[in-house]
Amino acid sequence: MLNTSEEIANFGELVNLLLKRNIKKRIAVVWPEEAHTQEAVNLAVEKGFIDPIFVCSQAVADKYTNNKLFTCLVATDPTDAAKKAVALVRSGEAETIMKGFVSTDVLLRAILDKEVGILPRGTVMTHITVAEIPSYKKLLVFTDPAVIPFPTDEQREAQIKYVVDICHKFQIKTPKVSLIHCSEKVDERHFPYTAHYLTLKEKCKNGELGDCIIDGPLDLKTSCSLEALQYKQIESPINGEADALIMPNIEAGNAFYKTITLFCQAETAAVLQGPLAPVILTSRGDSITTKLNSLALATLISDKNGL
Amino acid sequence: MLNTSEEIANFGELVNLLLKRNIKKRIAVVWPEEAHTQEAVNLAVEKGFIDPIFVCSQAVADKYTNNKLFTCLVATDPTDAAKKAVALVRSGEAETIMKGFVSTDVLLRAILDKEVGILPRGTVMTHITVAEIPSYKKLLVFTDPAVIPFPTDEQREAQIKYVVDICHKFQIKTPKVSLIHCSEKVDERHFPYTAHYLTLKEKCKNGELGDCIIDGPLDLKTSCSLEALQYKQIESPINGEADALIMPNIEAGNAFYKTITLFCQAETAAVLQGPLAPVILTSRGDSITTKLNSLALATLISDKNGL
Repeated sequence: MLNTSEEIANFGELVNLLLKRNIKKRIAVVWPEEAHTQEAVNLAVEKGFIDPIFVCSQAVADKYTNNKLFTCLVATDPTDAAKKAVALVRSGEAETIMKGFVSTDVLLRAILDKEVGILPRGTVMTHITVAEIPSYKKLLVFTDPAVIPFPTDEQREAQIKYVVDICHKFQIKTPKVSLIHCSEKVDERHFPYTAHYLTLKEKCKNGELGDCIIDGPLDLKTSCSLEALQYKQIESPINGEADALIMPNIEAGNAFYKTITLFCQAETAAVLQGPLAPVILTSRGDSITTKLNSLALATLISDKNGL
Repeated sequence: MLNTSEEIANFGELVNLLLKRNIKKRIAVVWPEEAHTQEAVNLAVEKGFIDPIFVCSQAVADKYTNNKLFTCLVATDPTDAAKKAVALVRSGEAETIMKGFVSTDVLLRAILDKEVGILPRGTVMTHITVAEIPSYKKLLVFTDPAVIPFPTDEQREAQIKYVVDICHKFQIKTPKVSLIHCSEKVDERHFPYTAHYLTLKEKCKNGELGDCIIDGPLDLKTSCSLEALQYKQIESPINGEADALIMPNIEAGNAFYKTITLFCQAETAAVLQGPLAPVILTSRGDSITTKLNSLALATLISDKNGL
């Protein structure tokens, strides 16, 4: 696909951007004991945008011992691996983290540890996904299908900052962020967050949320289709071409995520935002491509995090 | 597509079923002043499964005066038309209602009127959609993207009865109903409805919810993909082939509905359930096909309602 602007519009362009700019990050891979994770990491190493540190069993370390592109740090079990990976971030030796064959709970416990963890006090932790949907002309960044159940106002504002930051890293100068709801009407009684949407629009106008355009409430269709917007005779600066969607709750985010991957052949990448280093929480069902995309996304995000 | 079973798997088969069984229903069309609604009704009349009653302006009545297939009842304005259509249902002269160029609020006010309306006291009113998604092998019935914000336990149980009834009318003997959540874990603290899901499964086993299989919490993917279910190493009698999805809230239902129609080329049909007659609440953006599908669905549903 020809892309005349500098904006990153698909995952291929994302990887190309990393290579063009020689962006390469050190990633701690937590307990990479299965072929699937190793395969994705190997692909990213071949592409040239990561330096992997396997926090792994002795067996895996032995397997990679003659491969100069890999660093191995032996751990005794998944819990130990999670702690060691987090320590690598604290010491500045790793810039991103990827989950291998370890449960999310175990990894999160190490990240959230009050003394030796990597989530700064008062920082909102949330899961951000980027989707490449064949029938949409740009990448679509969206909020939390996995971590925050029903965002508070504070959490929602933090989510906006994360997605805007990601869009900026995609070289989208003024990203269009849509605040999703089932309708375009503010209804404070049934949906208190729709009133907060107005506050967020105001903050955006006052420049408090960085260089971006925010509008809402809008539904998913009026956010992503100019035709749908015009049918409803609504005016919106999003103009049916949202770069990012702030989902009203985890159920909507999850239903959206599952639907585009199951029924729309979407490719995705995802990272946990908030911790000192972006964390890739892959799941068993993720394809190699998804894992590779997430490695590229985490690498790009960590590039200016100034850890 | 060859369908060897008797189960209705797409909208073409739905229309064929109506014709095969000579099912034909009288439908009151409320203020059909625009070409779009008239066109859809004309198509359904041509197919032969509705007898339309236009509750319309004098101008529209004049236009259809020589068409013996249409009955016209002149109204003074949209509000008057809504009231007259509701009265036609009360008197047994109409078996379904379709919204034309009238706002949903106006039509609902007539339906909900305590004295002359058509929602029996204590009956749950909810919006049910049926989707034909190109990448799914069967029709998918799902709950409310439009009316009930956050279903109560009682409303959820009513929703199950409506979707099971629709599936039975699709000739699916034992429909598989999935109770949707962002995860497969019951989490009463953050998501109290997941605890109610267990109650519903129990009621189903006791035969209190009719001939159906109920399971949950399941996410959208483990509900509709055997592969996803097996990846997660979950056992479920839904087996990745749900006939119906009970959505956790309106935001999830709406995001799902908008996503499949915008990004997955899904065709849909929808009706408001609860009133004495199923009500088609079309919106401006709906295609003629959607309106035709909804007419077929409402006709089938009203067939055994014994109005």
